Amino acid sequence: MIDGFDFHKLSNGMVLVGEPLDAVESVAFNFMVPAGSVTLPEGCCGASCVISDWIFRGAGPYDSRSLSEALDGLGLHRMGAAGKAYITLGAALEAGHLSEALSLYSEIIQAPLLDDAQFESVRQLAMDEILGLDDDPRQKVMISLREQFLPKPWGFSTLGHLADLESLTPSSVREMVARSFDPCRSIFTVAGKYDFAAVCAQIESLFGTAVPTPVREILTGTRGDTYLHIPNDGAQVHIGLMTETVTCSDPDYYTARLAVSVLSGGMSSRLFTEVREKRGLCYAIGARYYGLKDYAGILCYAGTTPDKAQETVDVVVDQFNQLHEGLTDEELNRAKVGLKSALIMQSESSCSRAGAIGGDFHKLGRVRSLDEIKTCIDAVTVESLRTFLGGRGAWNFTAATMGPQSITL
Amino acid sequence: MIDGFDFHKLSNGMVLVGEPLDAVESVAFNFMVPAGSVTLPEGCCGASCVISDWIFRGAGPYDSRSLSEALDGLGLHRMGAAGKAYITLGAALEAGHLSEALSLYSEIIQAPLLDDAQFESVRQLAMDEILGLDDDPRQKVMISLREQFLPKPWGFSTLGHLADLESLTPSSVREMVARSFDPCRSIFTVAGKYDFAAVCAQIESLFGTAVPTPVREILTGTRGDTYLHIPNDGAQVHIGLMTETVTCSDPDYYTARLAVSVLSGGMSSRLFTEVREKRGLCYAIGARYYGLKDYAGILCYAGTTPDKAQETVDVVVDQFNQLHEGLTDEELNRAKVGLKSALIMQSESSCSRAGAIGGDFHKLGRVRSLDEIKTCIDAVTVESLRTFLGGRGAWNFTAATMGPQSITL
Repeated sequence: MIDGFDFHKLSNGMVLVGEPLDAVESVAFNFMVPAGSVTLPEGCCGASCVISDWIFRGAGPYDSRSLSEALDGLGLHRMGAAGKAYITLGAALEAGHLSEALSLYSEIIQAPLLDDAQFESVRQLAMDEILGLDDDPRQKVMISLREQFLPKPWGFSTLGHLADLESLTPSSVREMVARSFDPCRSIFTVAGKYDFAAVCAQIESLFGTAVPTPVREILTGTRGDTYLHIPNDGAQVHIGLMTETVTCSDPDYYTARLAVSVLSGGMSSRLFTEVREKRGLCYAIGARYYGLKDYAGILCYAGTTPDKAQETVDVVVDQFNQLHEGLTDEELNRAKVGLKSALIMQSESSCSRAGAIGGDFHKLGRVRSLDEIKTCIDAVTVESLRTFLGGRGAWNFTAATMGPQSITL
Repeated sequence: MIDGFDFHKLSNGMVLVGEPLDAVESVAFNFMVPAGSVTLPEGCCGASCVISDWIFRGAGPYDSRSLSEALDGLGLHRMGAAGKAYITLGAALEAGHLSEALSLYSEIIQAPLLDDAQFESVRQLAMDEILGLDDDPRQKVMISLREQFLPKPWGFSTLGHLADLESLTPSSVREMVARSFDPCRSIFTVAGKYDFAAVCAQIESLFGTAVPTPVREILTGTRGDTYLHIPNDGAQVHIGLMTETVTCSDPDYYTARLAVSVLSGGMSSRLFTEVREKRGLCYAIGARYYGLKDYAGILCYAGTTPDKAQETVDVVVDQFNQLHEGLTDEELNRAKVGLKSALIMQSESSCSRAGAIGGDFHKLGRVRSLDEIKTCIDAVTVESLRTFLGGRGAWNFTAATMGPQSITL
């Protein structure tokens, strides 16, 4: 086990990872249950969202109302959501209430009521949320972009598709929960103030007798189109661009992260300077690393007016293509300081750490310490970054836009 | 001085407040400069936003680019924004870089270049941001709601008004900066890991010789209409409701906060239960306390479909009107635990504490400790909450909606 982390595996396979944080009074935990959107049968896109809501509508001895009351009575702040591989159920709370919270979450995961009477309301809320995206073009364009860029079903929006949601029935969703809510393939993470021996004993007693369910094979399909335009009568054009890069387990991972930082890590970053400051092309511009376990990309968003949309895209693409040019130690150092500084901030929050160690374990099978990450970041040089960028050839972009007019890639 | 806080006042009036946090490696600081939107001359709505951007385009010996590079070189994460009373300029960073950061911020506050060549781009970005609200109806409706509810100029959006922004000139904005960027009326806050003696000495040397500028009197005007509907062809109706309540300095402040928590503090809260869970009227519903120094309200947002809009409003208004009915100790306790738990989470973050102690000092002239707040929350009883609610008479709402159809209040 790496210094600074706690690790335990139940005999049935369930994994427990912990990170104690000094001097905090809070604790955050996540149950990562292997029921994410890609694990569910074809044609059920959005079922994970329905499940994430439905399981909280009563569990074990609690009806919907008394479960909510019990959770609120612990001062528990719910976190987590339906993801690609996992549904994450988590919370942050005062450390003293952890044990009670874990008992409640055990009921939610292992004995949800999944009451027919609640189903229609849950499904309708999920559909309303999708319809609501029409009023959130920025999010809508980025969801569409990932749907095109990633192969099916990895790109599918976790919010789901309306037609799929309509076809769900209480019994079809109950069947998915029965197959997928498997503690033996779940990851439990905890960060903050906790007693790991006590946590292990409790998780063992709550989940230790669970037996594995069969794993459904995920069939990876094709990618979508290179460009999608969604006509919209707004005053703005929302532009999403995505291009491939290495995943978290790749030796060049930190080099890729620093490339993104040079592009978009701060006010002096290339995109911010060239697009916003020098040309005033848009008030919102940024690129970020997006990584699943087996697929990764650089996501770029720009919001601008129709008359500036094409120039914005051209400048952004140019900046990617010129990224290997003119790199200096100073520029790379700023990118490094920015990345490390963000890490330090994150390392002080129970919530982010509970999320980060779960992500690490899922993607890498182990947890990275802050020191390991810092060392890897520091090891990148201008030369290695230039080699990495030179080696990848041309940047190919997938694009999605939403607004009164389309662009040319 | 209250236990657990640091306090110092320079002879020219500048106030320094600090809150050390154990075991963090980060520090966050804010300069609250008295140049918020209400402090500026009439007809300049949005100038604070322009100023907040323009001052970062070069200062002292740094041109725009080298200033950005210097800030990014410290791994500094900028925080803060143009507010009603203050423009807040702040950052979070590794504790070791604090002194360099304060020197840079001193240049930004006291020697911004305010270069003509940058002005047009800065103004245009501010205007684009307002235009962009058309694609963010939720935010737009809440901005409009506060504009109606609060008396002028307190309600004016800090983003500004297009016509006002158009009328600004480089020299008129420079004049505002000269009058308003007064260290003697500024509040400096710091939270996390720092050496208060060193911080005081540095702030004294950087700002100690500043002399006061004349204070502009703020003329408070009338309130807007009770209901505003913004027609919009979206699939959703965005509903904002606002009603008056007590400010932070009022003896009933915590009672009011708990009333809001009962309404909207968790999954078992009344609004969530009645509007979302029982009736499935909307996927987004919530109420929160909104407090300026001299004005406060309860803000409520609901996003729903046109066919459910009227029922949603009716149910929300009913829930406010029935708030004094059926209150139990259990319900109040859940509200208390929720509020206190949120406080504990917040108390562990340098950024939130730097913001919170500044807000306290501005509104109360002192800083509240976590223990004081907990004691005040615990002192509220079902009886005192009922008395408070009974004493206020009917709830009168100001409303704003955006969507294909209006509602009846």
